[in-house]
Amino acid sequence: MAAVTYELIKTDKRTKARRGRVRTPHGVIETPVFMPVGTAATVKAMRPEELKEMGAEIMLSNTYHLYLRPGHEIVREAGGVHSFMNWDRPVLTDSGGFQVFSLGAMRKISEEGVEFRSHIDGSKHMLSPEKSIEIQNALGSDIIMAFDECAPYPADRSYVKDSLERTTRWLKRCRDFHKDTERQSLFGIMQGGMYKDLRRESAEQIVDLDLPGYAIGGLSVGEPKELMYDIMDECVDYLPKEKARYLMGVGSPDCLFEGVERGIDMFDCVLPTRIARHGMAMTSEGRVNIKNAKYERDFAPLDRNCDCYTCRNYSRAYLRHLFKSDEILSSMLMTNHNLHFLINTMKNIRKAIEEERFTEYKKEFYKAYGRF
Amino acid sequence: MAAVTYELIKTDKRTKARRGRVRTPHGVIETPVFMPVGTAATVKAMRPEELKEMGAEIMLSNTYHLYLRPGHEIVREAGGVHSFMNWDRPVLTDSGGFQVFSLGAMRKISEEGVEFRSHIDGSKHMLSPEKSIEIQNALGSDIIMAFDECAPYPADRSYVKDSLERTTRWLKRCRDFHKDTERQSLFGIMQGGMYKDLRRESAEQIVDLDLPGYAIGGLSVGEPKELMYDIMDECVDYLPKEKARYLMGVGSPDCLFEGVERGIDMFDCVLPTRIARHGMAMTSEGRVNIKNAKYERDFAPLDRNCDCYTCRNYSRAYLRHLFKSDEILSSMLMTNHNLHFLINTMKNIRKAIEEERFTEYKKEFYKAYGRF
Repeated sequence: MAAVTYELIKTDKRTKARRGRVRTPHGVIETPVFMPVGTAATVKAMRPEELKEMGAEIMLSNTYHLYLRPGHEIVREAGGVHSFMNWDRPVLTDSGGFQVFSLGAMRKISEEGVEFRSHIDGSKHMLSPEKSIEIQNALGSDIIMAFDECAPYPADRSYVKDSLERTTRWLKRCRDFHKDTERQSLFGIMQGGMYKDLRRESAEQIVDLDLPGYAIGGLSVGEPKELMYDIMDECVDYLPKEKARYLMGVGSPDCLFEGVERGIDMFDCVLPTRIARHGMAMTSEGRVNIKNAKYERDFAPLDRNCDCYTCRNYSRAYLRHLFKSDEILSSMLMTNHNLHFLINTMKNIRKAIEEERFTEYKKEFYKAYGRF
Repeated sequence: MAAVTYELIKTDKRTKARRGRVRTPHGVIETPVFMPVGTAATVKAMRPEELKEMGAEIMLSNTYHLYLRPGHEIVREAGGVHSFMNWDRPVLTDSGGFQVFSLGAMRKISEEGVEFRSHIDGSKHMLSPEKSIEIQNALGSDIIMAFDECAPYPADRSYVKDSLERTTRWLKRCRDFHKDTERQSLFGIMQGGMYKDLRRESAEQIVDLDLPGYAIGGLSVGEPKELMYDIMDECVDYLPKEKARYLMGVGSPDCLFEGVERGIDMFDCVLPTRIARHGMAMTSEGRVNIKNAKYERDFAPLDRNCDCYTCRNYSRAYLRHLFKSDEILSSMLMTNHNLHFLINTMKNIRKAIEEERFTEYKKEFYKAYGRF
């Protein structure tokens, strides 16, 4: 049996939103789900227990980063990424594709794979479909991702077509190389840029391989949000209902709602953790920039409707003080709040779908949150 | 009744080591005690709950820093430093004297006090005995310290004599200015540099004021350790047995043992937290520099005799990876371990005194820890 399976529990009557469940060797994930990102086998400024306490069900880690440092063989010797980082719940790893393509002048693409130089020390490396799977096998993550090319935006139709076809050829190589399908499940990635017919072409090719789950890649790469939603809407229709659908690298509150509405099950994004370290909070009443002088004597919690550790115990005045003083606790507390906020919002979304009031909940949320 | 009182429980038969108890408005402190430092109203990289879990009984915070940022009036409005930082156990604040004297060219001393420029924005300020107490009153710490001059090392006898006499005059001004002695207790500070007769002179002057506790200042300022121990030994004899004795700014493991042996009750130091952020651990087998390549594939805990959160859950290989990757969790885990190590060592010291085997425990510890 496949390591990872998807069960559809309920579909919203008015939208494509759906409640489901993903089973993995490290436990069950209720979907739709937001996955915190732990790039270097740590969600920045978080103890794993904090993530559990706030209800994080799965985390994402990055193949490119762990391959370069500490090295996947060390993670393998540690017993895999779960044991290495003290996290016993599910882990999804990306393929490293997105990162090496982002290296720009420091990489060279061929049919074989991508030759690149490390951002850490400039050393030369090669990442291919086989190498990416070899690394992810060593990491031992529950869900492993195909090695793909995420085409830039904007990009020519012919470039995108060539790229998606290579991505399909690479996906087949990933599938052929990945042996232990009962321990880890390979998800395919749909590409095709902003061209709907190419999205359909990509989908048909990858769905044909009957993998345990599919991701939509190549969105949120600089295109206008309306275009992203439009493409996303189309993409979902090409994917099978009985498999999990993962929208890669997307995680602002509005994108979660728009994605769920269009039938997405899984999301990940560094946004909540990154902006937290820059003093920016997501709250039930919109964004709060804790640096702002108006919070100097504001002894209310960051979010008066939040019951996270940070909001239960600290004031805006204290959080502002920590940020201004460049204290580590600032990143710790702000990150805790932002992750709690998104994970809790996703819990509410799941409940709303169950209770046939997703559309109403979305409206309420947008009204309270204000401009995105 | 004084806010803070000391109770002597037991004195070691072979040394001056003693077991005692300090009562404060925020709870009881078992002595000898090590106090973690939370300069800006946060022990760097620590949640208050972690400090409690490891048995921290009191923390120290810095008047100079809180006066400049966020400002003592803001802390007062927050309900005091305890409420501001979510710490309901005792707090000791220093007077700011040490910090402003350390500013060198950026400060000017007069009988009135010290004029100085902020290290943050260069703005001009004046700290005097009255101002320091006013700030500490606003902070609401349980133990407040007298505004003193910590003479540098080396220093002329005549400079040190003038300085200690001014420190006594300033102490009297502090005492006269501090009104609510049932809420906060003022400790006096002995100075006198490396001159034993001046130490005696300083002690006689301050003991005369019958304060709830006394500190030894002006040690660990660059002098050889043997000289420090020699002076410390002498100093303690000039202080009353029925009052708490606090050795300021000292906290390496050997200094704790040597201090306790000479009759010190309270210690504070940034050493454990600062070196933690630089990847250095104190362990039962001596110092561990986690950066070292030999820990790359070392899957044992940082300290095999330690039961702290870090040692229970993470390997040296993981800690090295976090440090090399410049991850915040590195500071969080290393700090947790180092503070746990010192606090736990102090627990063992207290037990050893109770069981009349302090000298034996010290020998064992030194043997295992190796070179300091």
